Amino acid sequence: MSQPPAQPDPFARVVHRFATAGKLSAAQMMLNWDSQTNMPRGGAWARGEQMAALTEVSAELIGGDGVGDALSEAEEMAAQLEPDEQADLKEMRRTWVHAAAVPKEMQAAKAKMSQELQAIWTEAKPANDFNAFSGPFDDLLKLQREIAAAKAAALGTSLYGALMDEYDPGVGEGLVDPIFADLAEVLPPLIQEVLERQAGWPEPIPYPPSPVDRQAALSHRLAIAVGHDPDQFRIDAAPHPFSVPHSPGDVRFTTRYDVDHVRYSIMATLHEAGHAMYEAGLPRAFAFRPGGMARGMSVHESQSLSLEMMAGRSREFLSWLAPLMAEVLGGDAAPYRAANVLNATRRLDDDYIRVNADEISYPLHVILRYRLEKALLSGDLAVPDLPGAWDDAFEAMFGRRPPSLAKGCLQDIHWAAGLFGYFPNYAMGALLAAQLFERATSDDAEILPALGRGDFGPYFAWVRPRVHARASLVSFADLVADATGAPLSAEAFKRHVRRRYLEEPAP
Amino acid sequence: MSQPPAQPDPFARVVHRFATAGKLSAAQMMLNWDSQTNMPRGGAWARGEQMAALTEVSAELIGGDGVGDALSEAEEMAAQLEPDEQADLKEMRRTWVHAAAVPKEMQAAKAKMSQELQAIWTEAKPANDFNAFSGPFDDLLKLQREIAAAKAAALGTSLYGALMDEYDPGVGEGLVDPIFADLAEVLPPLIQEVLERQAGWPEPIPYPPSPVDRQAALSHRLAIAVGHDPDQFRIDAAPHPFSVPHSPGDVRFTTRYDVDHVRYSIMATLHEAGHAMYEAGLPRAFAFRPGGMARGMSVHESQSLSLEMMAGRSREFLSWLAPLMAEVLGGDAAPYRAANVLNATRRLDDDYIRVNADEISYPLHVILRYRLEKALLSGDLAVPDLPGAWDDAFEAMFGRRPPSLAKGCLQDIHWAAGLFGYFPNYAMGALLAAQLFERATSDDAEILPALGRGDFGPYFAWVRPRVHARASLVSFADLVADATGAPLSAEAFKRHVRRRYLEEPAP
Repeated sequence: MSQPPAQPDPFARVVHRFATAGKLSAAQMMLNWDSQTNMPRGGAWARGEQMAALTEVSAELIGGDGVGDALSEAEEMAAQLEPDEQADLKEMRRTWVHAAAVPKEMQAAKAKMSQELQAIWTEAKPANDFNAFSGPFDDLLKLQREIAAAKAAALGTSLYGALMDEYDPGVGEGLVDPIFADLAEVLPPLIQEVLERQAGWPEPIPYPPSPVDRQAALSHRLAIAVGHDPDQFRIDAAPHPFSVPHSPGDVRFTTRYDVDHVRYSIMATLHEAGHAMYEAGLPRAFAFRPGGMARGMSVHESQSLSLEMMAGRSREFLSWLAPLMAEVLGGDAAPYRAANVLNATRRLDDDYIRVNADEISYPLHVILRYRLEKALLSGDLAVPDLPGAWDDAFEAMFGRRPPSLAKGCLQDIHWAAGLFGYFPNYAMGALLAAQLFERATSDDAEILPALGRGDFGPYFAWVRPRVHARASLVSFADLVADATGAPLSAEAFKRHVRRRYLEEPAP
Repeated sequence: MSQPPAQPDPFARVVHRFATAGKLSAAQMMLNWDSQTNMPRGGAWARGEQMAALTEVSAELIGGDGVGDALSEAEEMAAQLEPDEQADLKEMRRTWVHAAAVPKEMQAAKAKMSQELQAIWTEAKPANDFNAFSGPFDDLLKLQREIAAAKAAALGTSLYGALMDEYDPGVGEGLVDPIFADLAEVLPPLIQEVLERQAGWPEPIPYPPSPVDRQAALSHRLAIAVGHDPDQFRIDAAPHPFSVPHSPGDVRFTTRYDVDHVRYSIMATLHEAGHAMYEAGLPRAFAFRPGGMARGMSVHESQSLSLEMMAGRSREFLSWLAPLMAEVLGGDAAPYRAANVLNATRRLDDDYIRVNADEISYPLHVILRYRLEKALLSGDLAVPDLPGAWDDAFEAMFGRRPPSLAKGCLQDIHWAAGLFGYFPNYAMGALLAAQLFERATSDDAEILPALGRGDFGPYFAWVRPRVHARASLVSFADLVADATGAPLSAEAFKRHVRRRYLEEPAP
């Protein structure tokens, strides 16, 4: 107590401020996990109050008066900083731009409107009632347009680009538009080609119902195989699977258990285990700091899809998974023979739902949303015309028309939750997963054979230093180029799906 | 967005500030619950970082620059406020005094030292090693003395009184000292008298081991019987039972399950269910605000002990509990006959441990700690002399000498955790429980017969408006006087234990 602490320098001061906000955000993420897994129903009000308080205090830490000046002071000493610290500082500035560009009252109004709209959506979706949704959605959209305009002015981007930058800096319209245009051309005929080929295959034997406790045991085995440390993770059940970010050493994710569809829990577990491995691999030295967080949503999604799609549907992995399913799920062994598991896993779906979509159809679901939400934001598409526009676009892509709003434009919560500019990353992540995986398996020929033994070690040995450890200390473009030798494109994805669905031998 | 929000007045501004701090504190309490129940071992570091950030931000909200002036502004408009709002404002000021009196660095140093000392205590206790504990404990004590001096100067109290005021405003040395002096005289011979009487009783049949899942089912039945709403609470297991405050509609508490001692889980469940009913009964309109929180630790403890001791060891309740135990725990019915449960529950213990102590011995355990910690704080007792002083005092009270430090001065975590001035409330709560319960059962003759049917309704109908609903909107003295017609004293407690242990018929 006798010695006053050394005066922190301007960089140390902003690090402390942003890391404190990061820790509050981590607390929020954990409370959200609790809401989805443990909270009694009666706790909704109190939890909402706690979350709002945390949001308010974090917003003040990041975007309050004087923070811009504090950042400027730190930027003046940038020359004395290490490159990683400079990158961290750059991310602080970016975070600040997003927080400071939009007046606090506007952000609070959006939070409130989207909260209400989600409640309306929850009822309108099963009731097939667009009228109830339309008016308040239009109000939210108007506000979203104002917010986008404020951010676009601060960032010097288009309206939609400003929203994309929040979730996924470095993945803008300039990168997305030509890729999506290409995929929208290429994928529908490819789907036809694959469907014709699969028509000649034997019908897969359906998996029998599996009790939840066996599915949970299987999920746990999968998470361990992937590489999670038993002392540092947990899996729980939640209707909408997710993983908890910003929690080093305490990685949590959820999966969903449907007695009649064991495939859902396997795929959700692999998907979330992939997100969670990314979070677990972020550098502890930059924990809670903007530079120490995941690079963006496309990279995050590439990590989940690398496990769910690239590794998780590979012939090698499935040949290991099949006997594991037989062992853990028990019962008749026939559905769990390797050829049947391969056959069942590789079938293209004929569904309307993005989250159930097969590997090839998935980007088309995203492209549809991307185009519609850009049109909504610009005003080219009026809200009352959305259901028809959705169904027309779906029919043009897939040749079938959604039978209900729940299988059409009300299937996802994102718009009700005010998440605009968020969808593209789902497809960009799939492309990046293919590009990373192609390069990884070419750099190390042991990766695929190891998956055949349930060993993800060689795969993560490749990806961890190239993606996880770099966090946000490098730009999206540099991360992709350094890891794969090329900018992100759809080429590896197109090669991958042709190889897997047209060239690999039939099951 | 077009209309700016109405400017809040000075009172509304401090309400918002203190309620925000209250919500962050609620988030911390929930994360602490998570640490004790769900967190993987690896999460300790990240959780520590999150908790420290929440503590820092809350301290700034309550004790930061300008908060004293903001309170003064609000106090200038006190005449326009409702009485409950005035009481709330008074509690804000008291909270501020405690936060602002002590320099931030001193608080941070204490948090760090007590964190380290708890780790040392965890090893020193089973190793029976006072030397390892002594030095760092002395350092913490010196800092604690500085903190107490700073608070005492701000509050105009004695050193020890300043520490008591933090946990239990209105329960000072002036109230405690004469009561403890009286009990220290009266209880040892009373214990002898009861032991002599019980020597003539038949030996109780011991409860057989009970699996954890049956004990958990029993705990759940007890919580429902007490009055918890199935949609608004949950019970989990933790080594040190506790309940989570500041969480309206989402009441959580933990209990402990020891296969060989079903009595521990029953008593811990009743105890924590009592704390939790108090929290559940606080006024929602003042949720998260200083005036809306529990009145202090003595009142809180009175609510847990009213269930665990007053109701929970009553002949009526035990006559309902006995067949419930037989039903839920199963096996041989003999140990669960009402007479045996009564006999087993009422026996005085011959233990050394406060948390296992019987109703009559319990206050003596507390008085011993109270006297020693006052002597430690004043410097009259040197730390190296603590073990001997403890054992001498214990022997003088109970006629037996602790065989180890784990059963002596290292049994409780409180001092290692820097909780000074906290112990008295355990005994004052027992006295208040007796005084409230005596008045309640005299006001409503149905309370005890209802307990015989496992119905806590009449008891809570009495206590809720008189204790729970008043929160901190009334002083401790007024709360006690309004509810019982007299200031707090040991008289009701002394009548209660004589009645129960000397006058009621033998089992």
